[in-house]
Amino acid sequence: MKELKRENGLVILRFDKGEDLMENLTGWLEEQGIQSAAILGGIGMLSHMEIGRYDGREYSKITENESCEILSLQGSVSMKEGKPFVHLHVSFADHDFHAIGGHLFSGTVSMTIEMVIAPMSPGLVRKPMGGVFWQMDS
Amino acid sequence: MKELKRENGLVILRFDKGEDLMENLTGWLEEQGIQSAAILGGIGMLSHMEIGRYDGREYSKITENESCEILSLQGSVSMKEGKPFVHLHVSFADHDFHAIGGHLFSGTVSMTIEMVIAPMSPGLVRKPMGGVFWQMDS
Amino acid sequence: MKELKRENGLVILRFDKGEDLMENLTGWLEEQGIQSAAILGGIGMLSHMEIGRYDGREYSKITENESCEILSLQGSVSMKEGKPFVHLHVSFADHDFHAIGGHLFSGTVSMTIEMVIAPMSPGLVRKPMGGVFWQMDS
Repeated sequence: MKELKRENGLVILRFDKGEDLMENLTGWLEEQGIQSAAILGGIGMLSHMEIGRYDGREYSKITENESCEILSLQGSVSMKEGKPFVHLHVSFADHDFHAIGGHLFSGTVSMTIEMVIAPMSPGLVRKPMGGVFWQMDS
Repeated sequence: MKELKRENGLVILRFDKGEDLMENLTGWLEEQGIQSAAILGGIGMLSHMEIGRYDGREYSKITENESCEILSLQGSVSMKEGKPFVHLHVSFADHDFHAIGGHLFSGTVSMTIEMVIAPMSPGLVRKPMGGVFWQMDS
Repeated sequence: MKELKRENGLVILRFDKGEDLMENLTGWLEEQGIQSAAILGGIGMLSHMEIGRYDGREYSKITENESCEILSLQGSVSMKEGKPFVHLHVSFADHDFHAIGGHLFSGTVSMTIEMVIAPMSPGLVRKPMGGVFWQMDS
């Protein structure tokens, strides 16, 4: 993973083949002391993605092992139980170019991922609302 | 609805369960006097969404009542007939994680929506181009 | 194509009916001397889109000729062989509102496209990694 550019409040990150996207992103946030951020975009390819859909009580999950084109990444960074928490939703294309997506739990970078993130000063936190639902607050 | 953070030209908004997304967003824009903006992202869950697809003359519409994971929100704010107009396109995941989307007419927040918006000084306007088509201009 | 607004590091571009999206965007980047940028969003409609999916060796491609609602555009601008190169991924809705997407090679604006781009100082470059894969670097 490499920080390619930082300007006008935006950072361009590049993740490399074989990297765990969430682990590497969270590690970079911790190193940089970034507790709050908006994740504005991300394209490239991911494999071994675990994505979820919340049913009001819990997440139903599926795994996509194949390497897929990422169509969009959007999300946020806030503090949850003292650590930076990445809340990220993904859409990606399957074999036939059909889009699939959900809440991204994990994924492995295949080829490359180019991400745009806007780090902010501390202030965004995640508060428990019952069950697995933690709401972003300030 | 709550403004969680405003920094580097970006505002993080959180919408809460049961809120009408468009009404609340438009109300906030009017309160703040925001006439132009870029809507850079939004994730969370929406239900009772009305989405459309323009056929060159009019919108064909469908309604999704179930609570769905929002994969992406992108759009703009401009002035149309003296009021801030939200032009927003959405993609969301159905039961089987398949993505569906279109022009978002309305939707009810289920659980939460986290939105990233970049307010700008006035200047973006929407001009009638014939039929239901209004083009953004300055 | 028209630049509607430039503020806080963001530019709002509007592309018009019949324009070639990639040619017009690349032409504008060259005129402006923009060598690096983040493409943060884009909505509207495109037709005659050629999209691809990388299989690790080459791109398999499909063409969508019909006019489709664009759900999201995300990407980057970097220098490749001395020219600004647009790396853009798209998701769009088909007849039945189902989302389709991939790496966008080309497309014709139908109705309008509203794009949000964050120009940056020079520094992002694309380096050959073997085959058709060029990785963004700095």
